[in-house]
Amino acid sequence: MNGKFVTLEGCEGVGKSTQLRFLKEYLERENVPAVFTREPGGTPLAERIRSVLLDDRLEISPEAEAELFATARRDHIDNFIFPALDSGKLVVCDRYIDSSLAYQGFGRGLGIEKVLEFNRYAVNKCMPDLTVFIDMDPLRSFRTLSGKKIEHDRIETENPAFHAACYRGFKTIEKMFPGRFRAIVPEADKYATHLKIVDALIGGGVL
Amino acid sequence: MNGKFVTLEGCEGVGKSTQLRFLKEYLERENVPAVFTREPGGTPLAERIRSVLLDDRLEISPEAEAELFATARRDHIDNFIFPALDSGKLVVCDRYIDSSLAYQGFGRGLGIEKVLEFNRYAVNKCMPDLTVFIDMDPLRSFRTLSGKKIEHDRIETENPAFHAACYRGFKTIEKMFPGRFRAIVPEADKYATHLKIVDALIGGGVL
Repeated sequence: MNGKFVTLEGCEGVGKSTQLRFLKEYLERENVPAVFTREPGGTPLAERIRSVLLDDRLEISPEAEAELFATARRDHIDNFIFPALDSGKLVVCDRYIDSSLAYQGFGRGLGIEKVLEFNRYAVNKCMPDLTVFIDMDPLRSFRTLSGKKIEHDRIETENPAFHAACYRGFKTIEKMFPGRFRAIVPEADKYATHLKIVDALIGGGVL
Repeated sequence: MNGKFVTLEGCEGVGKSTQLRFLKEYLERENVPAVFTREPGGTPLAERIRSVLLDDRLEISPEAEAELFATARRDHIDNFIFPALDSGKLVVCDRYIDSSLAYQGFGRGLGIEKVLEFNRYAVNKCMPDLTVFIDMDPLRSFRTLSGKKIEHDRIETENPAFHAACYRGFKTIEKMFPGRFRAIVPEADKYATHLKIVDALIGGGVL
């Protein structure tokens, strides 16, 4: 594959969407051929699975949830990520396998080994060259979000203990994958955070 | 578990629906506490996955297809089959793991080992006490169906070679599971076929 694969991770409300927008604008200015995508989603099948996963009227067991994320990921890899990498593009993905490890492995309590097993296709075939983790405790970001009107899906509406466990999960993953995993502590100034992310991409050899 | 688990299998158009109706009426007359269900489906989550699987506008790889069937099956087991068996009911299911082995393993060419691996939860936890296979070559049943107006989904509309491979799959599975797998050659008279199925249930110790 000629392209590089970057993922952006973080708990709810830490400013991922804003940072993705800034990064997109930066890469356009710098004429870097890049595509932006998200998980769950990114292909017609994966988007259909996304709508099942985020439907708050459904009850989904932790195992079924982890399997559905992994199936959506398989389709995303085969039909979007691989073709884009193959054509030499930088692929930037909003959430990827580390969200499964943090949310299903820690938040739902399945354990990291079981989630890695469900995701063996991604583990064997398509791991990120670099993962930028916006390192912010969800209790802080929930305070920030509380004044905003936002839509909530089946996972966002989980209780604070769930989101605290996910955060602990990300911090554990950071130690497991020191090579590709870069934690960025966000600044009060969003643009300063953006510069830290660009530095991480340059330092990580993907730019 | 106090109840027994029976599955009905066969290629498209072999008269499964009619036989399920006859069997339901028979069990009601005999006052056998029974529930009827189907795959993919049987729970809210599995029915949502069913609508994804059968949508002929979607492209789904053999692996993703097999995974989605297996996830729907996991939910069906946990939230319908196990509770019904636990309460002592006879559970009759329209298609189950043998359809995955025949359709994805043989029809899609994934191989039986890979499909068994995707279905390890069902294999380890919930295999049928008895499987009745309506043993009819799909080329014959397609001829029979050709005069009827029926709706076609993403799998039914596959080409005849696919359905022939599925039939060969069922014949292979028959040899792999001689204990629980009973092939019934259907009669021209639907009621005579029904009597054969009832005999198989009695002979298999589930009635």
